[in-house]
Amino acid sequence: MSATVSPLAPKSYPDMPPIRGLRMATAAAGIKYKNRTDVLLMAFDRPATVAGVFTRSKCPSAPVDFCRTNLSHGVARGVVVNSGNANAFTGLKGKAATELTAKSAAAALGCGENEIYLASTGVIGEPLDATKFSGVLGDMAQGATGDFWLEAARAIMTTDTYPKVATRTAEIGGVKVTINGMAKGAGMIAPDMATMLSFVVTDADITAPALQGLLSAGVEPTFNSITVDSDTSTSDTLLLFATGAAGADGQKTIETADDPALSGFRLALNDLLKDLALQVVRDGEGARKMVEITVTGAESDLAAKRIALSIANSPLVKTAVAGEDANWGRIVMAVGKSGEMADRDRLAIWFGDIRVAVAGERDPAYSEEATTAVMQRQDIPVRVDIGLGDGKATVWTCDLTKEYVAINGDYRS
Amino acid sequence: MSATVSPLAPKSYPDMPPIRGLRMATAAAGIKYKNRTDVLLMAFDRPATVAGVFTRSKCPSAPVDFCRTNLSHGVARGVVVNSGNANAFTGLKGKAATELTAKSAAAALGCGENEIYLASTGVIGEPLDATKFSGVLGDMAQGATGDFWLEAARAIMTTDTYPKVATRTAEIGGVKVTINGMAKGAGMIAPDMATMLSFVVTDADITAPALQGLLSAGVEPTFNSITVDSDTSTSDTLLLFATGAAGADGQKTIETADDPALSGFRLALNDLLKDLALQVVRDGEGARKMVEITVTGAESDLAAKRIALSIANSPLVKTAVAGEDANWGRIVMAVGKSGEMADRDRLAIWFGDIRVAVAGERDPAYSEEATTAVMQRQDIPVRVDIGLGDGKATVWTCDLTKEYVAINGDYRS
Repeated sequence: MSATVSPLAPKSYPDMPPIRGLRMATAAAGIKYKNRTDVLLMAFDRPATVAGVFTRSKCPSAPVDFCRTNLSHGVARGVVVNSGNANAFTGLKGKAATELTAKSAAAALGCGENEIYLASTGVIGEPLDATKFSGVLGDMAQGATGDFWLEAARAIMTTDTYPKVATRTAEIGGVKVTINGMAKGAGMIAPDMATMLSFVVTDADITAPALQGLLSAGVEPTFNSITVDSDTSTSDTLLLFATGAAGADGQKTIETADDPALSGFRLALNDLLKDLALQVVRDGEGARKMVEITVTGAESDLAAKRIALSIANSPLVKTAVAGEDANWGRIVMAVGKSGEMADRDRLAIWFGDIRVAVAGERDPAYSEEATTAVMQRQDIPVRVDIGLGDGKATVWTCDLTKEYVAINGDYRS
Repeated sequence: MSATVSPLAPKSYPDMPPIRGLRMATAAAGIKYKNRTDVLLMAFDRPATVAGVFTRSKCPSAPVDFCRTNLSHGVARGVVVNSGNANAFTGLKGKAATELTAKSAAAALGCGENEIYLASTGVIGEPLDATKFSGVLGDMAQGATGDFWLEAARAIMTTDTYPKVATRTAEIGGVKVTINGMAKGAGMIAPDMATMLSFVVTDADITAPALQGLLSAGVEPTFNSITVDSDTSTSDTLLLFATGAAGADGQKTIETADDPALSGFRLALNDLLKDLALQVVRDGEGARKMVEITVTGAESDLAAKRIALSIANSPLVKTAVAGEDANWGRIVMAVGKSGEMADRDRLAIWFGDIRVAVAGERDPAYSEEATTAVMQRQDIPVRVDIGLGDGKATVWTCDLTKEYVAINGDYRS
């Protein structure tokens, strides 16, 4: 948690309506930080359905392994999240820590350990002392009342400078349902299935397989399209829960992700996921500017995304943005190194509405002054047309500043 | 060219013996810089054989296209290199600039335009005014005397803080031959066939196909195993010339790269390529530390190299090194995101001789103090054993400092 809030932080937070069937509690377990909450319990009054996507890292954290195992059961009664320690690369001790935490949480909530979900964020490689949770989970389960998303989002922050929440509503078969979500993350952000940590809950009545279908599709153009520093976390976890409380209002249970009744819900969910994902980028470590990179005219959508990520992850592009320098030569470089098909002499590049390069060279009409004005904005749109096909993709990133180096050169110690 | 020389610069430069059959000249053509040399002419008295490797960028510079075309001819009489402008992404104007330069050089040297090689380094996207060369190449060809490698290496510097040269000798069939080389590069360094710019000349008598075989094999564990910032240049060019002057001493012409008489020469060449490549890393923009990353026990050598590069290109690993922080959790992260097979619970990690992690968790015997002492060195060896197979690779990189951001946030403007 930083003293200085990102200049890209939202100006205000949304009112987060309650989600029926969900209660929350936070506590200060003293995992690493002093004088702040660092553990969150989410408790479902009745079994909720659950879907999840996780890091593709070959070295996932112990909680990721734990959640993956439980997901086949498809039912959730509780979630325990802590900040300060990622419980990653902690070997048998890490596995034991997840088991002890789940056991304590299951006892506190009166459910099975396979109905508990866990997530941890913080330093990698330090053993996590799960006895610290055992002491507080009973009280937390007792005291959990309503849902206070902003406070909950604050409890799971690490280098984040602001809590990240979003809410949407939709109708399913004429019944109004709500979707709330939170996320955390600012560094080690290049999700490859999900982001650092994000939890989304709806009161809709949707089965676990349908929920998983929605989530797997929704994550691709949202969390999987952002990058702060190209470094994929060991702990990326995005969980979506449905309490089913809207069933009491007459919402018919949704069995499959392609049910036409989900059209509005799908849009609302994807919009919420994008909202949370962009909040993560806007809190990118040291970020002063947000960059939206759209690639069109690539051979395929996948090629477009790879090119867009090659641009978004280039240190030279990101430092140029930090310096408010419309250095489109570095965009050319990043297109060229992506490995995807490109033809130098068909490339066109825009900053905002200004086309700076066309047909393999500088646009004759390009004005340095007008382009500099675009670069001085907080939000900078970049578009690259490859000129070869119909593939397109948009990704989001932030600039690379000296503050990023400062934050990460002195984080663990 | 920076006022401050990298702290990792060589303490002294080698005496560069002359290469028979080669003359050089430098001049100040005023391409971009004031009061410094910015163009180099290398002239071969008699046709030299030539081999080259170039960037794999899909948006190569005009000089790269030009050299690729000429390489099939296999004969070189002259090389023109400039700094200050890369002549990349300059469209038809860029092609015209290479043609005009080659025409002027061919006229000055009395040879064909297909016997001229070109390389340019500097800003991308600005048209290069080749008439500035036409004015000086005639005088340069006349005045070219002997070979002065250090001065030549200085003429092609951009953000480099020191000139990079190396020399080796070998015997071929009992005849002593010499190999001299120079390189330039400090940023946009993640070569994918060659580095930014490097020129190597030997007086050995070796045919072009044999030379190409030697170079293509030699570049993989040297220039293709370094990275400063993961950004691959549009201009990467490594050219190797053989003047054949040693033929006068009785050296029999070498026809194929697998000729057993080349065993000593191959070692000397590869050693020289590695020397130059490491000099590039040691001049990495903003670098204060050099990191040698060795991966063993991977599924294959290729997998080992990909894992090693994933570590070497991770901003979080590089900032940790800058902060002298033995943050091996970030090494785990980089192994995990590489996409290559890894098993968290078999991983072992060393900084210097100190094993900090083993069997998927912190080494019980690991001393923070001793590891910090390793991190305070200028040269830091990191080893990761994947524990799965026999694949191994070594790559070299530097740390990521605030100076890198400063240099690149204010380069073009």
